[in-house]
Amino acid sequence: MAAVTSNQEKAGPSICGYHFQWLALLAKSLLELARQAKKLGEDDPRRIINSLKAGLSIILVSLFYYVEPLYSSFGVNTTSAVMTAVVIFEFSVGATLGKGVNKMLATLGAGALGLGVHRLATLSGKTGEPIVIDLFVFAIAAMATFARIFPRLKAKCDYGLMIFILTFSLVSVSSYREENIQKMALERLLTITVGCFIAILVNICICPVWIGEDLHNLVALNIEKLGIFLQGFGGEYFEMYEEGLPSKDRSFLQGYKSVFNTQSREENMANLARWEPGHGRFRFRHPWEQYLTIGSLTRQCAIKIDVLNNYIDRQIQPSLEIPSQVKEHCTMISLECGKALKELSSSIRMMIRAETTLLHIGNSKIAAENLKSLFISGLWKEADPLERAPATAVASLLLEVIECTERISNAVQELASLAGFQNMESSRSLEQQQESNQRIHSINLQNHEITIGE
Amino acid sequence: MAAVTSNQEKAGPSICGYHFQWLALLAKSLLELARQAKKLGEDDPRRIINSLKAGLSIILVSLFYYVEPLYSSFGVNTTSAVMTAVVIFEFSVGATLGKGVNKMLATLGAGALGLGVHRLATLSGKTGEPIVIDLFVFAIAAMATFARIFPRLKAKCDYGLMIFILTFSLVSVSSYREENIQKMALERLLTITVGCFIAILVNICICPVWIGEDLHNLVALNIEKLGIFLQGFGGEYFEMYEEGLPSKDRSFLQGYKSVFNTQSREENMANLARWEPGHGRFRFRHPWEQYLTIGSLTRQCAIKIDVLNNYIDRQIQPSLEIPSQVKEHCTMISLECGKALKELSSSIRMMIRAETTLLHIGNSKIAAENLKSLFISGLWKEADPLERAPATAVASLLLEVIECTERISNAVQELASLAGFQNMESSRSLEQQQESNQRIHSINLQNHEITIGE
Repeated sequence: MAAVTSNQEKAGPSICGYHFQWLALLAKSLLELARQAKKLGEDDPRRIINSLKAGLSIILVSLFYYVEPLYSSFGVNTTSAVMTAVVIFEFSVGATLGKGVNKMLATLGAGALGLGVHRLATLSGKTGEPIVIDLFVFAIAAMATFARIFPRLKAKCDYGLMIFILTFSLVSVSSYREENIQKMALERLLTITVGCFIAILVNICICPVWIGEDLHNLVALNIEKLGIFLQGFGGEYFEMYEEGLPSKDRSFLQGYKSVFNTQSREENMANLARWEPGHGRFRFRHPWEQYLTIGSLTRQCAIKIDVLNNYIDRQIQPSLEIPSQVKEHCTMISLECGKALKELSSSIRMMIRAETTLLHIGNSKIAAENLKSLFISGLWKEADPLERAPATAVASLLLEVIECTERISNAVQELASLAGFQNMESSRSLEQQQESNQRIHSINLQNHEITIGE
Repeated sequence: MAAVTSNQEKAGPSICGYHFQWLALLAKSLLELARQAKKLGEDDPRRIINSLKAGLSIILVSLFYYVEPLYSSFGVNTTSAVMTAVVIFEFSVGATLGKGVNKMLATLGAGALGLGVHRLATLSGKTGEPIVIDLFVFAIAAMATFARIFPRLKAKCDYGLMIFILTFSLVSVSSYREENIQKMALERLLTITVGCFIAILVNICICPVWIGEDLHNLVALNIEKLGIFLQGFGGEYFEMYEEGLPSKDRSFLQGYKSVFNTQSREENMANLARWEPGHGRFRFRHPWEQYLTIGSLTRQCAIKIDVLNNYIDRQIQPSLEIPSQVKEHCTMISLECGKALKELSSSIRMMIRAETTLLHIGNSKIAAENLKSLFISGLWKEADPLERAPATAVASLLLEVIECTERISNAVQELASLAGFQNMESSRSLEQQQESNQRIHSINLQNHEITIGE
């Protein structure tokens, strides 16, 4: 603001000067916008492809306007096809399929019900007709609106219920004026189906974004973040104790904080993932629910980690020296839990059963036992309790972290058996088999070449 | 399932028996549904009123079909009015207004742009027209779809951008076939405006649900939950230490857990509350942002409380006796912080400046200083460190809770000055004035009666 004011003073109150400033401001904000857009595109290039796909699906639907035989069969109702293609098209396959199926089923059901109400209303004469229609519309719209607050319905078919109210009201109310309401309802259903199919086909056939895979990776990433923290924590904390004021960059330890805000996102993703057909390593009825269990355990563990992190952040420096054995065992617990979590994360990511997780958890438990007996031996009795409090609190938090890690490990094991993760062995033997197949193939090729050469 | 099988065996495989079972199952699930609906309605009776309001707004729009002069002016486009009323109608005033304004502005902008593109396309002849239209539709739809991922646009006008794409595609593509595209675009804008206004009027005029007020109450309730926990914690924890295995009901201490899951809900509510006009004690530009700050500090405090709660849940029973002074100071800190938080909560709820909060925080700080000097005095040195660990950890967590409480208090003070909360004094004097006014009024009435009696 100060710069702008000084510029104004220099340029004087000429109209040209104001225009120039205005243009400069516009250019600056456009540049800022372009910079933001570039960053968003770079963060996830699928967003750019998605925008182009959305444009393409509208263009494909617009062909129904331009091509004569198509237009004459649908007529004015083609507008519903365009509307449907715009509204249905979402970023992920799951969301698009969910909305599409909801819309088609709701249109079918509400259309049929609307026609039934029309039949009933015509029985009561021209004056009674609007009253009967409105009574039904009021009752059914109110009931369907109320149904939208049922938690299970809200999660799965909120959009479908809205379309149900919309189509039912439209068909019933239009039937008062429309001559051939059956034809109108049928055309509406047909054009909506066409719009849905085009949007769904474009969404699935061109670089599909599977929200199930995103959920899978998000859950694995969250566990990895906790692992990274724990692997670094022991060293950072006790090193700090020794060196006094810490100065080096600890930003790599802050990654876990994003774990707290993913609950509603995970729930939404799991709801949408259920709509997705089998793809790649995921079959149709993949146990998406189990990811929510793992996610919630991860957040519980993150709460403990947040408290641990406080002890680094606040740079608590007691005057006493911590016995090296205490440091050693605490670092060991933290390190081994970190390793276990990182292995669980890559086990999810690669869909291979974790093998050494229990070993790492076992190691951390041994260290915990050693730590406990160290405390009982009274090694540290002469020190002042409050000065020792941070270190004992850290030790007792680390014991809790072991429990959390074990719970996450159990949940991942359950996911592995539900989703049929492969054993490391069988996956290795599969790789070996593939390799040997390739070798045989190349030998065959060589033989073939030799044969040809001969 | 076992009961069903035994019933089947008794009834034998007669068709009548099967039918009866089927009916019984249906009746059972209908009863269950009714029970759920009753519970949802009782939890928040506004939901039932909202459903009736939704039905009413559709009926009001349907009058445009039944009343001749209205129908002849809009014609077939009346469908857009019905659609708009259904889609716009939301539970809260903020959501309905936000969607309505988004829809009207987007329809206006996209309609004008569509007409411009139509003009441009007609210049390129009948063969070139669809190509030019599609180029524009593709480019603008892709750009607008991309714009929907900008975080700020997504929060404020995601719906508007979708309607923009929809209307623009519809107007541009229809212009190829439609004779009088200006008339169609204008009628569409008019019917959508009518639909919006009816939905908004019904929403605001009949028992309005203000989402800003809900946010206000939610934030106050969350702080209160933490206060309830802290007021109970000291007694519960140290009593448990004395009595051994605890048996009594502690469910009242678990209320704080719901605080963790409200972040995304709060953000959404703050976004919608911005649309609401001034109402009751809230003016148009009420500082909704500040509620998010308070909410996030509340969650930070809830993390500490969750760790404290672990010490109750796990029933850690050390063999040593905790000195009564330690218990006393810890209970004092917890109690005073609890009082402070409960006062802050009711200060928000009643929109009156908190007066004794700083006093309570001061008391807890004095207790903290006493606790620290108690530890330094070496009162407790002979005990085993690991056995003492839980109690020292609890003490150090309580010191952190004081900090959190102070931060929440500062944020609430800021809200009080931003939103112009009244002082207790002025509010009291206002009450007194009202009371004295009433007294004068009743005295006047008595005098009046006496006059009449005479």
